[in-house]
Amino acid sequence: MDQPRRRAGRHMLQIPGPSNTPDRILRAMDGAVMDHRGPDFAGLGRRALEGMQSIFRTEHPVVIYPASGTGAWEAALVNTLSPGDRVLMYETGHFASLWAKLARRIGLEPEVIEGDWRSGADPEAIARRLGVDREHEIRAVCVVHNETSTGSVSPISEIRRAIDETGHPALLMVDTISGLASIPYEHDGWGVDVTVTGSQKGLMLPPGLSFNALSPKALAASEASRMPRSYWSWDEMLGPNGKGYFPYTPATNMLYGLVEAIDMLHEEGLENVFARHARHGAATRAAVRAWGLEVLCNKQGHESGVLTAVLMPEGHSADAFRATVLEAFDMSLGNGLSKIADKVFRIGHLGDFNDLMLMATLSGIEMGLARAGVPHRPGGARAAMNHLTETEAPRAA
Amino acid sequence: MDQPRRRAGRHMLQIPGPSNTPDRILRAMDGAVMDHRGPDFAGLGRRALEGMQSIFRTEHPVVIYPASGTGAWEAALVNTLSPGDRVLMYETGHFASLWAKLARRIGLEPEVIEGDWRSGADPEAIARRLGVDREHEIRAVCVVHNETSTGSVSPISEIRRAIDETGHPALLMVDTISGLASIPYEHDGWGVDVTVTGSQKGLMLPPGLSFNALSPKALAASEASRMPRSYWSWDEMLGPNGKGYFPYTPATNMLYGLVEAIDMLHEEGLENVFARHARHGAATRAAVRAWGLEVLCNKQGHESGVLTAVLMPEGHSADAFRATVLEAFDMSLGNGLSKIADKVFRIGHLGDFNDLMLMATLSGIEMGLARAGVPHRPGGARAAMNHLTETEAPRAA
Amino acid sequence: MDQPRRRAGRHMLQIPGPSNTPDRILRAMDGAVMDHRGPDFAGLGRRALEGMQSIFRTEHPVVIYPASGTGAWEAALVNTLSPGDRVLMYETGHFASLWAKLARRIGLEPEVIEGDWRSGADPEAIARRLGVDREHEIRAVCVVHNETSTGSVSPISEIRRAIDETGHPALLMVDTISGLASIPYEHDGWGVDVTVTGSQKGLMLPPGLSFNALSPKALAASEASRMPRSYWSWDEMLGPNGKGYFPYTPATNMLYGLVEAIDMLHEEGLENVFARHARHGAATRAAVRAWGLEVLCNKQGHESGVLTAVLMPEGHSADAFRATVLEAFDMSLGNGLSKIADKVFRIGHLGDFNDLMLMATLSGIEMGLARAGVPHRPGGARAAMNHLTETEAPRAA
Amino acid sequence: MDQPRRRAGRHMLQIPGPSNTPDRILRAMDGAVMDHRGPDFAGLGRRALEGMQSIFRTEHPVVIYPASGTGAWEAALVNTLSPGDRVLMYETGHFASLWAKLARRIGLEPEVIEGDWRSGADPEAIARRLGVDREHEIRAVCVVHNETSTGSVSPISEIRRAIDETGHPALLMVDTISGLASIPYEHDGWGVDVTVTGSQKGLMLPPGLSFNALSPKALAASEASRMPRSYWSWDEMLGPNGKGYFPYTPATNMLYGLVEAIDMLHEEGLENVFARHARHGAATRAAVRAWGLEVLCNKQGHESGVLTAVLMPEGHSADAFRATVLEAFDMSLGNGLSKIADKVFRIGHLGDFNDLMLMATLSGIEMGLARAGVPHRPGGARAAMNHLTETEAPRAA
Repeated sequence: MDQPRRRAGRHMLQIPGPSNTPDRILRAMDGAVMDHRGPDFAGLGRRALEGMQSIFRTEHPVVIYPASGTGAWEAALVNTLSPGDRVLMYETGHFASLWAKLARRIGLEPEVIEGDWRSGADPEAIARRLGVDREHEIRAVCVVHNETSTGSVSPISEIRRAIDETGHPALLMVDTISGLASIPYEHDGWGVDVTVTGSQKGLMLPPGLSFNALSPKALAASEASRMPRSYWSWDEMLGPNGKGYFPYTPATNMLYGLVEAIDMLHEEGLENVFARHARHGAATRAAVRAWGLEVLCNKQGHESGVLTAVLMPEGHSADAFRATVLEAFDMSLGNGLSKIADKVFRIGHLGDFNDLMLMATLSGIEMGLARAGVPHRPGGARAAMNHLTETEAPRAA
Repeated sequence: MDQPRRRAGRHMLQIPGPSNTPDRILRAMDGAVMDHRGPDFAGLGRRALEGMQSIFRTEHPVVIYPASGTGAWEAALVNTLSPGDRVLMYETGHFASLWAKLARRIGLEPEVIEGDWRSGADPEAIARRLGVDREHEIRAVCVVHNETSTGSVSPISEIRRAIDETGHPALLMVDTISGLASIPYEHDGWGVDVTVTGSQKGLMLPPGLSFNALSPKALAASEASRMPRSYWSWDEMLGPNGKGYFPYTPATNMLYGLVEAIDMLHEEGLENVFARHARHGAATRAAVRAWGLEVLCNKQGHESGVLTAVLMPEGHSADAFRATVLEAFDMSLGNGLSKIADKVFRIGHLGDFNDLMLMATLSGIEMGLARAGVPHRPGGARAAMNHLTETEAPRAA
Repeated sequence: MDQPRRRAGRHMLQIPGPSNTPDRILRAMDGAVMDHRGPDFAGLGRRALEGMQSIFRTEHPVVIYPASGTGAWEAALVNTLSPGDRVLMYETGHFASLWAKLARRIGLEPEVIEGDWRSGADPEAIARRLGVDREHEIRAVCVVHNETSTGSVSPISEIRRAIDETGHPALLMVDTISGLASIPYEHDGWGVDVTVTGSQKGLMLPPGLSFNALSPKALAASEASRMPRSYWSWDEMLGPNGKGYFPYTPATNMLYGLVEAIDMLHEEGLENVFARHARHGAATRAAVRAWGLEVLCNKQGHESGVLTAVLMPEGHSADAFRATVLEAFDMSLGNGLSKIADKVFRIGHLGDFNDLMLMATLSGIEMGLARAGVPHRPGGARAAMNHLTETEAPRAA
Repeated sequence: MDQPRRRAGRHMLQIPGPSNTPDRILRAMDGAVMDHRGPDFAGLGRRALEGMQSIFRTEHPVVIYPASGTGAWEAALVNTLSPGDRVLMYETGHFASLWAKLARRIGLEPEVIEGDWRSGADPEAIARRLGVDREHEIRAVCVVHNETSTGSVSPISEIRRAIDETGHPALLMVDTISGLASIPYEHDGWGVDVTVTGSQKGLMLPPGLSFNALSPKALAASEASRMPRSYWSWDEMLGPNGKGYFPYTPATNMLYGLVEAIDMLHEEGLENVFARHARHGAATRAAVRAWGLEVLCNKQGHESGVLTAVLMPEGHSADAFRATVLEAFDMSLGNGLSKIADKVFRIGHLGDFNDLMLMATLSGIEMGLARAGVPHRPGGARAAMNHLTETEAPRAA
């Protein structure tokens, strides 16, 4: 590729995904492609599939697609539902609304519970709606775990409990594209039927792989499902997967990176990974408050350890601010999407990240606020340092 | 990844794809992920899209999917057709039959012209069938350009002419997954409506990207099409593509490799690339004949420059032979698929390949035949050397 | 290599060299070795040799050794001097004293002007000593340009002028191992006879290459020199170098990186590189002063843009502090050497570095001071942000 | 770097070193530089030093230089001898003569036993000369183990025995730059005092590291030695080495590669490595004889498994032939040096190499002979295939 006029030092990619891919993963991917039907491939395939079970925390099958996360959204729906099926979807933010739009495009009938984009999904609202669905027309409830557009986390375990208490048989489908491997997630423990995720967030890979984790109930639903499907079909996958192979050419080099990523997560320890993200989220919110700005997520307990969305002061453009930060400090921040476009910027603090990378990020924002003329109090970076100094970083044993 | 007990030297991946990925492409992919919504991304996106137009030889839009080639097969169908549509598919081999199976799974009505798996598609057979379709129930003709399971090439330009002569309005869809950037292909010049390809063959990338090239007629068909679709929708792609962006997260690092691959193909010169593959195919067939073995493709002019499928002598297992070669010489050869399983082995001579790599390949086969006790005459490698010595390698200017 | 128990995020290597090697250079080095006697090599060799002339700012020959900087020290001496020759060496710090020790080991008679390790060399002290050397027994004056152990810069141009004013014929030899390509340097313009440098500082490469830049006077001296030498001999180098080759096997992959590094420096622009380092040095000193700590270099105008050495408060161990920072924040700082061991720590702000990397570094130090219980005032990082906000980063055109 | 007009496929580097560096080593080297004085470095340093002991097969110290092999030649001499010392050197070929030239340049008195460049050193000739050296003026005997310019191997163990039988106290110094880790070598078992090697041959690394292995007698000699030295001084190395560190900045990324290489050699098994090279040497000689050409080494038992030098038929230029092979087949062969310049070409079959790479090499030569109009019989490649088919490749357990 042509080289742009050079800027010194490392670009900071602090959008809420793709996250920073560590060298160790890039180097694992930088290898010769192997024969995906040869005997050596099976070991790689099995390590990837079993490794992902350990990350989803499930004993049931995981499906790996050579596709973006959007594909895994589609896969979850087309494997379990039939044309015209009603689906209850909770609009926690932009990505939840995109999932609903996708459902409609492929011929389902999404019914959307509108949220305020400042918190995760409300289990009671879901339970209320299911409670009046006497005919069980609603076939599935779809929730985004970590809403990447807002930085709010939905209480999946409580939603499961709320559904169960209504006695409603709907499937529970969860998008944790930006949550998995950053904040706690339990596919089996929380009783999720289909979990959707992607490679480019907590898994620290480039984009290009996405995943479904299944439940026995989801598998049963797939047998009754009448949506047309081929590329996304679980049934075509599960046979070859049993021996470590795939029905069509897999993205081999991404799989090299995936098994490396899984090893790295376990070397750090998943609990340490979760504690690290939680601590960085808290430090970031301390900074935002010290600047006198407002965190978009306003519901305590729903704040994400993955990203923090920050509301701009009235009359100031978030996109102009982000452009200033990119120009002056070579850091990419996330933009506000659809109805909060230009009103928020998003700070990614996920993936392969540590205290000093966080301080670089927050220092860049603090200097950017000054440079862009955004009203704020200095001291945010300092407040984050206080938080980091007062708390211990989680450490590998 | 754990290292297996080491074998010295370089593994030879001589399956008919994935092909050998050159270091230069792997190194281009081994870079930090960038913000796919940031200002710098547009240049990358445009280079990829425009570059692929130069490879497909089209002035019309190209669509890039983060997906395997199988996905691009599905995309070609779901964007242009409607449930229950009749499609005429020519079974040149295993992959053609898989495409037909996919069509059936997603709700189309494929009608298959059976071939003998030893040649490309027959334009006259297609014309005959279209000629009797007075009601124009057949909406599309689907042909595999380079059948990867057999090593036969279909005469796409003649098929177009044959269709046109019937006056039938069916779309022409062509799978050149293993043909593009190895043997001549002209999307516009040959009047193809949808061309399907993948990254892991002549483009020399790892698997993980696939493509559709469109025609104005295909675009018009996509407006009338009533297949449910979202991930594969051209219309969602074409808007953002116009500015170099994608509607969902692209496989950024694959795109880094793609623009490098396109540069490399043009540095060598596409005509030189085609001449190189043709010469290696001829040298390979000379070797096969000298061994006293039979090339599967028995129709002159249909032999592929990408791969050569070789029939095993009666009573000898192709898979046992391939296992011997892998074990003794660390070379992967392609297997026979479905009805020719264990009866043929396939030699890939595509992608980033040169005379001495071909001689290594053929030497490994010649020694493997001896080691596996397969009846043959020595002298195949020597025959290939004669061919290579008597002909000039095509060279970059 | 075995993987240690994993720490998340990127390690910060903020010692004053080796500096951070950018991905682009590592990737250039990650390529197949080529035939160092083949026709393609000459282009690489010439680009490296001519490129280094552009960095040294000289029209005279440059010699490249596959060796550490220590080797290039030895080379400068053994090519120009004879056994028992007297050499005037200015002890600006630890590395100047090591160079003198090396001179003594190889049979020269170094005479050392002692400095206080808190400033660069004093031109007048050199002139005074030369002025009384009526017999011209002193054959060379050796000065360290950027003393890596103290962070002080010697005024080379003034030293040249001071020598010239005495009319003394001694050669001027300068070690700018840690200065070149970070702070201004003019081999020809300043009248230096031999300049010594290494790959792992401003050139942003891993260690493993070192360099001599020559003057016509140095070349003449090499003809009279009677020191035994072979590996380091300029005369053996200069012949093959003329055609882009080397007399013995060069470190080919390091040369791949070197030509990439030279391109990168020119893409940024050397003046921008110098301005960037100066600005980061000033921001760092602002931080140190705000913490209430003392910068080791106490002579205005001698402070280095490459590194800042910081005095620890009485009774506090610099090494314990550095260990805390490494343990808590995964950042390596430089240690105090020989007589200032454990009394100073050194902050590298050189090479491939930018504002946010500096803020990460200073934030880590500020948090480390707190964590290690070192008396200080908070606010250093904030002071650096003020400096960075008030000044413009130099930018490529 | 600028890309040359592209040639497809992999270049074959079949000179007798630098050898092909495997991807796994290049990828290990493609990592961030670490603090060479930090706590993590010691593990790397120790693995490198202890690993090299296992390759040299010694329990005594090994010294690692950031330098080419030429530097390690110089190191062996300057650490053990004094100015004017007499050294007996056996001229097995060009590299032996270069070592003698180096000895003379640095002030020693080499006495050269001339060989015919077609065999290794003759133990009896050495014994005869030592036998008449009653005053023990000869302080060291220097022999090249694997003469890279001729492809002949000297019987080191017999030379040791011959020296011992004379009762002469001279040190035995051996250059196995191109022999180590390819053909059997026993530093302790054979009683060698100083062994010299480099990184770019059997160790499969790029050039840039070289080595001395020592004996207690060599260490004792170094205390009495009066050659000026600093960079090469063993005594400065051995102290820090004891803790895994180095006295000056080591070539860190080369060390990353070195420990990977050592692991790979042990994974394959040194005995398998040796058997592999021996088998490839025999197959190559079978090819040369089948072509009707002559192997330069004409003493049975002295033929090298590392390389084969081939005499051109009278009146034909070896360099023109090599240029043809490079141009037509993108393969680099080694040239004839000094008195055999243009009369021989050298085939490297060392390092990371296997049967099919050998067949590619020999096929390229066979086709090149035809293309260059060099009189020969076809059938060399076939003869090599016969040898490879009739013998078993050594395999890792």
